[in-house]
Amino acid sequence: MIIIMNASAGDTEISQVEHRLQSLGMRCNVSRGIERTVIGAIGDEVKLDQEAFEALPGVDRVVRVMKPYKIVARETHPSRTVVNVRGIPIGGNTVQVIAGPCSVETQPQMDSSAAAVKAAGCRLMRGGAFKPRTSPYAFQGAGVEGLEMFRKAADRHGLPIVTELMDVRMLDTFLKYGVDVIQIGTRNMQNFDLLKEVGRTHTPVILKRGMAATISEWLMSAEYIAAGGNHNIIFCERGVRSFETAYRNMLDVTAVPVLKRETHLPVIIDPSHAGGKAWMVPALARAAIAAGADGLLVEAHPCPSEAWCDADQALNPQELVTLMGELRGIAAVLGREL
Amino acid sequence: MIIIMNASAGDTEISQVEHRLQSLGMRCNVSRGIERTVIGAIGDEVKLDQEAFEALPGVDRVVRVMKPYKIVARETHPSRTVVNVRGIPIGGNTVQVIAGPCSVETQPQMDSSAAAVKAAGCRLMRGGAFKPRTSPYAFQGAGVEGLEMFRKAADRHGLPIVTELMDVRMLDTFLKYGVDVIQIGTRNMQNFDLLKEVGRTHTPVILKRGMAATISEWLMSAEYIAAGGNHNIIFCERGVRSFETAYRNMLDVTAVPVLKRETHLPVIIDPSHAGGKAWMVPALARAAIAAGADGLLVEAHPCPSEAWCDADQALNPQELVTLMGELRGIAAVLGREL
Amino acid sequence: MIIIMNASAGDTEISQVEHRLQSLGMRCNVSRGIERTVIGAIGDEVKLDQEAFEALPGVDRVVRVMKPYKIVARETHPSRTVVNVRGIPIGGNTVQVIAGPCSVETQPQMDSSAAAVKAAGCRLMRGGAFKPRTSPYAFQGAGVEGLEMFRKAADRHGLPIVTELMDVRMLDTFLKYGVDVIQIGTRNMQNFDLLKEVGRTHTPVILKRGMAATISEWLMSAEYIAAGGNHNIIFCERGVRSFETAYRNMLDVTAVPVLKRETHLPVIIDPSHAGGKAWMVPALARAAIAAGADGLLVEAHPCPSEAWCDADQALNPQELVTLMGELRGIAAVLGREL
Amino acid sequence: MIIIMNASAGDTEISQVEHRLQSLGMRCNVSRGIERTVIGAIGDEVKLDQEAFEALPGVDRVVRVMKPYKIVARETHPSRTVVNVRGIPIGGNTVQVIAGPCSVETQPQMDSSAAAVKAAGCRLMRGGAFKPRTSPYAFQGAGVEGLEMFRKAADRHGLPIVTELMDVRMLDTFLKYGVDVIQIGTRNMQNFDLLKEVGRTHTPVILKRGMAATISEWLMSAEYIAAGGNHNIIFCERGVRSFETAYRNMLDVTAVPVLKRETHLPVIIDPSHAGGKAWMVPALARAAIAAGADGLLVEAHPCPSEAWCDADQALNPQELVTLMGELRGIAAVLGREL
Repeated sequence: MIIIMNASAGDTEISQVEHRLQSLGMRCNVSRGIERTVIGAIGDEVKLDQEAFEALPGVDRVVRVMKPYKIVARETHPSRTVVNVRGIPIGGNTVQVIAGPCSVETQPQMDSSAAAVKAAGCRLMRGGAFKPRTSPYAFQGAGVEGLEMFRKAADRHGLPIVTELMDVRMLDTFLKYGVDVIQIGTRNMQNFDLLKEVGRTHTPVILKRGMAATISEWLMSAEYIAAGGNHNIIFCERGVRSFETAYRNMLDVTAVPVLKRETHLPVIIDPSHAGGKAWMVPALARAAIAAGADGLLVEAHPCPSEAWCDADQALNPQELVTLMGELRGIAAVLGREL
Repeated sequence: MIIIMNASAGDTEISQVEHRLQSLGMRCNVSRGIERTVIGAIGDEVKLDQEAFEALPGVDRVVRVMKPYKIVARETHPSRTVVNVRGIPIGGNTVQVIAGPCSVETQPQMDSSAAAVKAAGCRLMRGGAFKPRTSPYAFQGAGVEGLEMFRKAADRHGLPIVTELMDVRMLDTFLKYGVDVIQIGTRNMQNFDLLKEVGRTHTPVILKRGMAATISEWLMSAEYIAAGGNHNIIFCERGVRSFETAYRNMLDVTAVPVLKRETHLPVIIDPSHAGGKAWMVPALARAAIAAGADGLLVEAHPCPSEAWCDADQALNPQELVTLMGELRGIAAVLGREL
Repeated sequence: MIIIMNASAGDTEISQVEHRLQSLGMRCNVSRGIERTVIGAIGDEVKLDQEAFEALPGVDRVVRVMKPYKIVARETHPSRTVVNVRGIPIGGNTVQVIAGPCSVETQPQMDSSAAAVKAAGCRLMRGGAFKPRTSPYAFQGAGVEGLEMFRKAADRHGLPIVTELMDVRMLDTFLKYGVDVIQIGTRNMQNFDLLKEVGRTHTPVILKRGMAATISEWLMSAEYIAAGGNHNIIFCERGVRSFETAYRNMLDVTAVPVLKRETHLPVIIDPSHAGGKAWMVPALARAAIAAGADGLLVEAHPCPSEAWCDADQALNPQELVTLMGELRGIAAVLGREL
Repeated sequence: MIIIMNASAGDTEISQVEHRLQSLGMRCNVSRGIERTVIGAIGDEVKLDQEAFEALPGVDRVVRVMKPYKIVARETHPSRTVVNVRGIPIGGNTVQVIAGPCSVETQPQMDSSAAAVKAAGCRLMRGGAFKPRTSPYAFQGAGVEGLEMFRKAADRHGLPIVTELMDVRMLDTFLKYGVDVIQIGTRNMQNFDLLKEVGRTHTPVILKRGMAATISEWLMSAEYIAAGGNHNIIFCERGVRSFETAYRNMLDVTAVPVLKRETHLPVIIDPSHAGGKAWMVPALARAAIAAGADGLLVEAHPCPSEAWCDADQALNPQELVTLMGELRGIAAVLGREL
């Protein structure tokens, strides 16, 4: 940690900072410049509280030197992690496209969805049984019955299932139904009690980025899960809030190379919630894979305009097939398969 | 709901929209302009799914005419609601300042905090027993023991207590300790299961705005609580995420007049988490009251630089007293008391 | 234009809106719903001032039906425009990569830059002679002398030149030196007098998006240029301001499909100013082409760490060659050349 | 400047940084921590290019120690500057409200505007003769004729005039008409050639904040003006771009205390362009003065709904009078006059 003093800070203030550092077991490197004094703290920075030093008299600002995340950091674990979902690798050389409807509606809808997902060449299936809806008056998901329908439809095609967990009290039910990948949605990225609980399981977790979370906060949320013992974490960028109104969220494609440098864990993209319109999805999906993402989470529905939720953003089965073809080409340019 | 067709939409597309509306029990007003056709849907808009219409061929965009919130809307409830917290009115003519430390640390710290809060003339006290921290390695709060210390210190001075609920499984404990106001933090504004549960109690709720939530989404989160039967809701603006790095969050002072127009419920401001530095707090607190806020949620600590969390943003007891004096003057200009 | 009245608006307010519309030569379609009245204005919307109607008593809000841009809109000009730069097509089937240093420094630096740009297979060259720098104390560009060095170096390799115009008084000089493409930088996207002046020339213009401009405002700025008679406009997305600090700007890759739908003009991407770090550039450049961009504006320098400006974001000659190879592969997947 | 090395940086990389610093005349303080090495550069930081060091191998990031602005910084000029506009002080103990219409329309409109501004107790008048409009098809201002009308109306009431300069070629005309305060609008905050030119005059300048400019960039733009010799600069916060759509821009009230700490120059607020609706203006205006602003720039029109531009945000004469009364009360609480 580096403590930058005010131009007007005197010896008393400088000593006070030094003493505080020493009382916490740190050594100090004091550099008196022409206009300011800078104090470097040598020792284990994790023990230091940045705000407490910023509250000391004479301190202008405090800069951390170390990354605040450890287990998820690439610095401490240089080789890439491949998350294994019932034999299907995420984060390896093969790009994975996880497709399916926004919400579980009926058994026939799930059956034809699963068939379409399989036919398009995808190896995992998504679908929401519990839906986080802005309005309390909107459809809240089919619930446990939805999990059952999803399980049945997916099993018929050998597809592992990915579904969102919103309420910590529902975790046992998820485990009972053998949910293969637990999705933590954007609104729960900092629901720390939920993160701690999924951290105690061994089920792979897709951790979506919060609506306006920094990449650093997102890594820290993953660290919450990892600190509990569950290292099977997949990051999913799904667009962030911005001033632009031409689409739903702004896809932060730069998050892909940044995460690839900062963490050893897989990174996927949800182009459907990012753009919010089906006609934008192919362009965003291609961009994601070209940027180096390990996969996609994409909405597809047997008949989009009849969907009970997010009808305007789902691909139809034919569009999904076409997209898979394009992605295969792009993956090949990067030496990957799909 | 108004459906604006594309310039190239033909009779077939227009008819399809009309039929869909009629099948949902709506009447249609079709206005054929020079360049575009606009279809007005007459009937109960709440039943209509905007996305489903946006997914229909030939549709350019869909505009809602009605507010999506009902119970919390001022339109349906023109007179202001005053929330009663053990006899103390929030949202009435008296401005309320809720002060106290960021986190409950020790019994002596809480005792001297309570004494300072009372001495400054505040009528409610804040303090966190469960802390949402970005890092899993940071102090997570004193937990149930903290609730106990808080209760004891506040009771001695007759101060109702305000504290944050993060985990739905902790709600019974909160009720057992008689928490007077349950705070829903910024990270949980869209934790819908938590909102539904506090909606089933009668305990007043302070609902903080999400880090990057629109005012409309925030009103919808309050609607979740209200729909459960609990109408004792207090909105708390605490700054939103922005591109500016000179402070922690950007205080959205305009949210005050906007909310005052949109809802009948009280609105308060948290100037401490907004600015993130104690020296900014008085200016922001004065601005909030001048803009018409019904109160403040402000951090104060007997000895800020020793605080276990957010040390750089708490006021010391003397600063709190000075601030109360300034606020009293501003409240008077607006015909209010403090 | 659609005028949505307040729930409490009465006949007087409704009549007032109707009269105002009629006095401006519009016909009205009044739709009285269950809770609100909606008035549709039929006629040429361009003549109507949205704010003036929003200021009328009883009006809740006003929605425009038509796009505010005309000449640049795809709606009025469905086939794609190819901008011809001295025989090199931008916006056609061939993807164009415009490379070169951030700023013109010396003749040898420009000579070796031009050689590297040519050798990598690029067909146009970029370079700044006038630099918009945040600090008045930073290097402000080589000026007219820089134009001369740039011209000389580029001509040797038959490369048309792209350079930024900041000051309207410098336009004649740009024309005198035969600048092939005038770049309007992000800080000048709404420098309307500058837009009007370049609109009077026939020189192709690269119009960068403002730091936090909406796509609609950007299209309107292009409309300023087009309204003057110059339709040779190329949009360039270069990242927008956001809350994220892990990189310089957030590349808005979704702007590519949105612009492709809204306008017939070419769209390119500047991955260098978006990310701000050379190591991010290849991922962003690949994403841009995969999303359907018509080209790139990319910084390359013979020796990046010696560059006088933005040293950390330029590619070296070898990195540029490697990138061109990857982009060729991605372009081919989309049926394009490079 | 502090250079933080990567965890994996070795002696070679560290030496290279040291040599580069020494070659630029700096001394080095090398602090080898447990996990990383940190190099402090001692000497005049202004000469160092941050990006050039970030481009060196082994460097993780570079932190500036000094403020990049000098003349406008409070650090180098602790006492407050009062800008004198024809005898009227801005930035002193008296709060100044600059009122008037968005745009100059006709002589009668300007005459009655001036009379209303004077009658309300304001001491300066605003009005736009050259208007930056998003659309090329919107009213662009009355131009030089407008300046003449403005001058005539204001002189009758002894009101100094404030008006916006957009085009550097118009500066001489502004000086000829004796414009008392030149306003640089939000879209021109980084129009550096314009800043340099007004920096060569002695006319007071109101420098509006760019739509999404950081406070630091804004201070640097003021530094451009100051570096030319003109220190009569007034900062004007007018709301910044955000994700919220309930109003036009988000008023950054926190910018007031931050600027008051960072610079000795006056700070005012434009509540009209911030909110964008007349009914929000009083709340924002009161908040601004309560936060410590030195004045306001506010839109007022004899008959708002007839205004040629921004009709929905202007106060009428009576609303202006009422607002002035409220502001007087708030100013008094802070020991100021109005």
